[in-house]
Amino acid sequence: MPQNIRFAQRFNGISGSAIREIFKLIAQPDMISFAGGNPSPSALPDAEAARIAEQVLREDGKRILQYGATEGYPPFVESLKGYVRQQLGTEVPAVLPVTGSTQAMDLLCKAMIDPGDAILVEDPSFLGNLQCMKLYQAKLVPVPSDENGLIPEALEEAMRVHRPKILYVIPNFQNPTGKTLAAERRPLIAELAARYQVVVAEDDPYRDLRYTGEFLPSIKSYDTEGWVVFLGSFSKIISPGMRVGYLAGDADIVRKCTLGKQSSDLHTANLTQAVVDRFLREGLLPGHIARIRKDYAVQCEAMLAELAKFPEGVRYTKPEGGLFIWVELPEGVNALELLPRAIERKVAFVPGTHFYALGGHENTLRLNFSNSTLEQIHTGMTALRELLA
Amino acid sequence: MPQNIRFAQRFNGISGSAIREIFKLIAQPDMISFAGGNPSPSALPDAEAARIAEQVLREDGKRILQYGATEGYPPFVESLKGYVRQQLGTEVPAVLPVTGSTQAMDLLCKAMIDPGDAILVEDPSFLGNLQCMKLYQAKLVPVPSDENGLIPEALEEAMRVHRPKILYVIPNFQNPTGKTLAAERRPLIAELAARYQVVVAEDDPYRDLRYTGEFLPSIKSYDTEGWVVFLGSFSKIISPGMRVGYLAGDADIVRKCTLGKQSSDLHTANLTQAVVDRFLREGLLPGHIARIRKDYAVQCEAMLAELAKFPEGVRYTKPEGGLFIWVELPEGVNALELLPRAIERKVAFVPGTHFYALGGHENTLRLNFSNSTLEQIHTGMTALRELLA
Repeated sequence: MPQNIRFAQRFNGISGSAIREIFKLIAQPDMISFAGGNPSPSALPDAEAARIAEQVLREDGKRILQYGATEGYPPFVESLKGYVRQQLGTEVPAVLPVTGSTQAMDLLCKAMIDPGDAILVEDPSFLGNLQCMKLYQAKLVPVPSDENGLIPEALEEAMRVHRPKILYVIPNFQNPTGKTLAAERRPLIAELAARYQVVVAEDDPYRDLRYTGEFLPSIKSYDTEGWVVFLGSFSKIISPGMRVGYLAGDADIVRKCTLGKQSSDLHTANLTQAVVDRFLREGLLPGHIARIRKDYAVQCEAMLAELAKFPEGVRYTKPEGGLFIWVELPEGVNALELLPRAIERKVAFVPGTHFYALGGHENTLRLNFSNSTLEQIHTGMTALRELLA
Repeated sequence: MPQNIRFAQRFNGISGSAIREIFKLIAQPDMISFAGGNPSPSALPDAEAARIAEQVLREDGKRILQYGATEGYPPFVESLKGYVRQQLGTEVPAVLPVTGSTQAMDLLCKAMIDPGDAILVEDPSFLGNLQCMKLYQAKLVPVPSDENGLIPEALEEAMRVHRPKILYVIPNFQNPTGKTLAAERRPLIAELAARYQVVVAEDDPYRDLRYTGEFLPSIKSYDTEGWVVFLGSFSKIISPGMRVGYLAGDADIVRKCTLGKQSSDLHTANLTQAVVDRFLREGLLPGHIARIRKDYAVQCEAMLAELAKFPEGVRYTKPEGGLFIWVELPEGVNALELLPRAIERKVAFVPGTHFYALGGHENTLRLNFSNSTLEQIHTGMTALRELLA
C-alpha cells in the first residue's frame, strides 16, 4: 500500500459485508449453503435469456450498445410503469431503472443523507443496506418489531425523538426474519411518514414469492403526499446477476436520485434493461413466478419440518413467503462460534448478529432455503441439529 | 413534492450534467450533434454482440444469471488482467470490473474523499467526473495546462499548497481539449504523486483511438509505489451502453473501492462482463479498433478542414486521437448564447464553460466528430461558421 495514504472517514469501522465474506469461505463445490439469498439455479431462466438477449440485440442493437439516458432504456421505462402500477395497486408519478435495488438504496441515501442524519431501521434488518447507510455516515436507529412487524407506537416515538430522514422497511417476508408487516399497520406507517415528514424506503424484493396467505397492499398504496419511495427488484423473480431494479415514487425525489445516478454509473446497462423489458412484454413473468413459488414453498416446508426436530429451546419463524427463516438458539449459544464448526461439516448460514444495527443477539442465525435441494436441506439441517444436540 | 423534504447538502449547487441536459434538447432525428461523446453507430458491434450474448448465456447462463462476486465475473477478471498488462505495459497488482468508468471515479472518490478534501483537476476537464467530485463535496483545484498538458511546476506548487488527496488527469486526447500529455511529463507526474502522497486517477478511455503519432507510456507504467490508479473503459472501443469499465492499481486501494462497490451496486452485471470477456478472448478487439480508428481519423480530418475555413480569431486544437476538438472563439463571443441559435439551425455542441471547475471561459466550446457522418460534419460546421461570420 502506498505509504501514509489517507482513505475517507466513511470507511472507519466498515469491514465488508459479512455475507460477501462468507460467500468466499464457502465457495467449495460440496458445501451446503443456507447463507446468501441466492435463487435456485432452476429458477434462473437461462434458455429464455439467451434467446431474448440475441433477439433484442438483433432488433435494437445500435440503440442498446450506444449511450442511454440516465432515466432508462425507453421501452423498459414504458413497460416498467405498467408493471409498477399493477404491483403497487396505485399510479406512481415516476420510476427509475437502477443497477439492482442495491443501487436504489444507495441513490436514496445519496439524495437524502448528510453525515449524522438518522435513519430508522428494523431490528434486525438487511445487512447490505445497513452497510450502505453506514457508508453515508447515517445514525442508524433500530425500531423494535413484534410478530407483525414494526410496532407503530415504537415507530412514532422514534420519529418524534430522532427526527429521521428515512425509515427503511421490508414489509413482506422480511430479510432476515421472514416476518410480514401486518395489513393494518401499513396505512399507519404511511400516515406517520407524512406527519413526521420522513421518507419511507419500502424495500419489497420478495413480494411475489408468497406461498401461503393473502397478498397485502403496499405501504405506497396508502401514500397520499409522496413520502413513500418503493424499491423494487427483478433479482428474485428473473435474475440477480442482471442487476436490474427500480425506484418508484414522487417525481422530485426520483429526479434527485436520477441526478445522483448520473455520476454513479451514468445509466444501467441497456442490454440488461432490454432483456427484462422483453421478459415483461412477452408475459413470461406470471408463469415463471408460479413455477418458482411452487418449488420454494416445498423447500420452505422441508426446512421447517427439519427445524421441528431441533432441540427444545430453539425458536424459529414460519414465513409465508420469501427466502429466509430466522432462528433463535437458546440464550448462551453463540452462532458466530457455531459457524466454523458448521462449515467443517459442510453447512453454512449467516450469524444473526450481522443484521442488527447495534450488534448483539449472538444466539440468532438466518437460514436460506431457496438455493438448496430437498436432499441438501435434509443433510444440512441434520448436521446443524447434531451440532446443537 | 412532499412538503419540507430535506435533501442532502451534497446537491447544493448541483444542477445535473450539462451534456445530459443537452442530450434531451437535441433528441430530434434531424439534429446534427457535435455534443456528447457518442461512438459512431457503425462502430457499435451489434451483430457480434447478439451472437456473443446468446452464446455466453447458453454456455454459462446459470452462473451469469446468479449473484456474482463484487470482484467481478471470474472469466472476465482473468482476461482483463492480461488486457490491462498489455495496455499499461506493466504488471498491475489488482483489477476491478466496474459499471462503466463513471463508476470507477465514483468508487475512488468514495474510497478517498471526505468533504472539503482537495482534488487537483485539469482546467478544463471532463464535466461528468467534475460533478462526481462535487457530489463528494471535494474542493476542486484547477491546475493550468499548456499545449503539452499539465504543467509540472504548476502541478507541484498545487500539490504543495493544497495537499490534495487525488489528482485527476486524462493523459491521452483529453476530454474536452483533445490535448495529449507529453511523454516526458509522465514520469514526473508519477514522481510528484509519490513525493506528495497523492493518488493519481489516470483516466484513459481514448488510449486506443490514436490517429497520428506514437503511443505513449501510461503514467501508471512509471509508478513504483502504487499511487497511480488507472481508470479504463470499453465504452469507446466496444460499447458505452454495456457500462463495462475497470479500475487497476494498488491492491489496498482497489480493495477499498471493492468494499465501496458492495453497497453501490453489489456487482457489475455478469452478462455485460461476459460479453466483453468473449470479445477479448475471441481476439476481436484489434481488428475492430483498427476499423474505428480509420473512420474516426477521416472524420477528425474533415472537421479540422472545416475549422480551417472559420473566421480569423477562432482557435482550435489538432488532436492526435480521441473524439473531441476544442474551440476558442474570439474574446467576447459567448458559446452559451451561440448554442440556442445553433440548435435552431439543427446543430449542437457543448459550451466549454461547463468543463471548467470554476466556470468562466464562455468563449470556448467542445466539438465531437465521432458521431457524425462526413456529410453531417460538412453541413453542421458550415452552419456554425455562418453563425460566427
